[in-house]
Amino acid sequence: MTAQHHPSVFRDAGPPRRHPGGFPLVGVVGAGQLARMLVPPAVGLSLGLRVLGESDGDSASLVVPQTVPGSHTDLHALRRLAGECDVVTFDHEHVPAAHLQELAASGAVLRPDPGALRYAQDKLAMRERLTALGLPCPPWRAVRTSAEVAAFGAEHGWPVVLKTARGGYDGRGVLVCDSVADAQEWVRRSNAGGSPLLAEQRVPFVRELAVLVARSPMGQAAAWPVVQTVQEHGICTEVLAPAPGLDADLAAGATAIALRIAGELDVTGVLAVELFETGDAGGAGAPRVVVNELAMRPHNSGHWTIDGAVTSQFEQHLRAVLDLPLGDPSPRADWTVMANVLGGDYDELYSVYRHVLAHDPALKVHLYGKAVRPGRKIGHVTVSGSGGPDALADLRSRARHAADYIRGTVTR
Amino acid sequence: MTAQHHPSVFRDAGPPRRHPGGFPLVGVVGAGQLARMLVPPAVGLSLGLRVLGESDGDSASLVVPQTVPGSHTDLHALRRLAGECDVVTFDHEHVPAAHLQELAASGAVLRPDPGALRYAQDKLAMRERLTALGLPCPPWRAVRTSAEVAAFGAEHGWPVVLKTARGGYDGRGVLVCDSVADAQEWVRRSNAGGSPLLAEQRVPFVRELAVLVARSPMGQAAAWPVVQTVQEHGICTEVLAPAPGLDADLAAGATAIALRIAGELDVTGVLAVELFETGDAGGAGAPRVVVNELAMRPHNSGHWTIDGAVTSQFEQHLRAVLDLPLGDPSPRADWTVMANVLGGDYDELYSVYRHVLAHDPALKVHLYGKAVRPGRKIGHVTVSGSGGPDALADLRSRARHAADYIRGTVTR
Repeated sequence: MTAQHHPSVFRDAGPPRRHPGGFPLVGVVGAGQLARMLVPPAVGLSLGLRVLGESDGDSASLVVPQTVPGSHTDLHALRRLAGECDVVTFDHEHVPAAHLQELAASGAVLRPDPGALRYAQDKLAMRERLTALGLPCPPWRAVRTSAEVAAFGAEHGWPVVLKTARGGYDGRGVLVCDSVADAQEWVRRSNAGGSPLLAEQRVPFVRELAVLVARSPMGQAAAWPVVQTVQEHGICTEVLAPAPGLDADLAAGATAIALRIAGELDVTGVLAVELFETGDAGGAGAPRVVVNELAMRPHNSGHWTIDGAVTSQFEQHLRAVLDLPLGDPSPRADWTVMANVLGGDYDELYSVYRHVLAHDPALKVHLYGKAVRPGRKIGHVTVSGSGGPDALADLRSRARHAADYIRGTVTR
Repeated sequence: MTAQHHPSVFRDAGPPRRHPGGFPLVGVVGAGQLARMLVPPAVGLSLGLRVLGESDGDSASLVVPQTVPGSHTDLHALRRLAGECDVVTFDHEHVPAAHLQELAASGAVLRPDPGALRYAQDKLAMRERLTALGLPCPPWRAVRTSAEVAAFGAEHGWPVVLKTARGGYDGRGVLVCDSVADAQEWVRRSNAGGSPLLAEQRVPFVRELAVLVARSPMGQAAAWPVVQTVQEHGICTEVLAPAPGLDADLAAGATAIALRIAGELDVTGVLAVELFETGDAGGAGAPRVVVNELAMRPHNSGHWTIDGAVTSQFEQHLRAVLDLPLGDPSPRADWTVMANVLGGDYDELYSVYRHVLAHDPALKVHLYGKAVRPGRKIGHVTVSGSGGPDALADLRSRARHAADYIRGTVTR
């Protein structure tokens, strides 16, 4: 038989296929970099992976054997993915709640399930629930009018942070208001949309922390060390694992908060809890950390775990959503630093990447196959090492250099 | 648009596609576990990967987006793969030499190239070349008749190891002869095939070692620590990285041998050199290691590097064949132990694997998606740790337990 008698690829049609040996197939709604980074552990664990994506150029679609075409707002496409897979999980929190309910009602196994996902999708619901649980939050209130924003500001001080309850990420859907005038346009739009806004005090903080945990349906949970995240213009640029100099009690307290949230909200899979460390700003008796945001999926603050932990957040997420025993989240080195690679002005990355590989042979480069746009997250780098503060400073400088070189903001 | 208007997958036809950003596409001849394990680093490095495979159930075809259908003996299929990819590399050494020459003559970039591959394909050519380079080999001779086998045995002692020059692996193509009578059948078949056999002295050795190096076309080379391999019935069952208690001079000497072979034979990609450590058996002045076999591809003795080294052999192979700067081969821990998982009597692996994950959360399990057959390599496990000889013994026992449990030779 000669080549032209063969089809171009084998899996151009046909029914779903379980992998040999009885291994399950995991469906992922969304085909971005989080779905993409599930591929390496799925290969090792021999788990099947199928993504729902809108284009064959999507980050994950470039590297998985099977993409179900469609949008996360297309119920038919979601049903097809669920029908072909043993478990469905998520690359983002934007699936309409009504679709999630319909899928669950039709017997799809959604992990996390709609009851938990609600708190990752709706910031007001999250604040209500966490407050009811007695967990530390910034002062907050649902607001519908400029007068309510003004009253909140008068009570808690300006600036006030306004948030849309749904749809925000990476600083989008967040507006810092120095006065009520800044809030008018958002209040007007919010009233047109029929849903309230969330007003929060801009908490004075010394730094931002994140706790990543995973929880399985059987209730097993595991936590990685608390990390420090560094944000610029609302986008995470750097993660230090573990958070340097963090008080052990504070670390234990932050971890306990994340594990409690995972348990109370019945989260399955990875849960990221972003926190503000407030130091002494709140005065005696005030909580020293408050919860900023939640995400119920692998999260940017956990990318360091791919190279820096015995079990990465991506492996753990697969294990958790399949109710497999969880893996050891221990770090592999004293320090791991992750720097996000943001897009710059040119898109031929291959040449700059060659330079970065040559410059630092121990650097781990992860690029997402995404088209370059200025400021867009297109990859990350990590570097690990052991030693004291000097070692950490060296790792930060190396990670930063590589990210800046790929972006084009440094040229040597 | 509803789901049924979409094709089942996106990449069911069409011309080759370069990945975004100018990243190259690597073609791999063969779709076994070695090709499969190139997938995780290709995802991170944003490199395209396409394999040549005979069935959609092949280990690598299960996990890559694009498989070119065909056999490694089908010149049309090989040409198609080469035409679609920037570089072609290999999962095994069984491509006919004439096909390699034709591909190279037509402009395909083969790495390693046919001039180097010859020494991985033909054990007689390898012995001639290494002997000419003054590198330590067991006493050997090309033999065509029983009389020649008898003469070799009389000179170097029995048993004599007979090897087919081409096509052997994992102990196949190797016959240990206690007397000339054992050799008769092989000599007859060899004469019918027109090619001589290789007779080698069965070297007394204290243990088996392997050195893994990588070399790029620009001549950059990197070596991982020398490992000890443990073989049972001609199949590697366990690898200890680094080889415990290895004399530093011997380790340096073994590494120098591998780097010299890589350079002299102009190898590109990963080169594995399997060695016998002879101890004092050869007497004063005799070499303390001799070369047993070569492989010019990622090799079972290097699977430990996936979890145990900063740069795995699979990442390094991709970097090397693309002439990218090589990565740091340093180990991540004092010790990493790899145990091969061999097939047992039952093929529903998922349940035993659940047990193994629960039993040892720090274990890294790698299964290849291959149908189970007794004795077949279907996966491997690794576990890393630091400390003295007790730590190593503990790691060996954990790796061994997991491999035995999956195989079914222990049940608790």
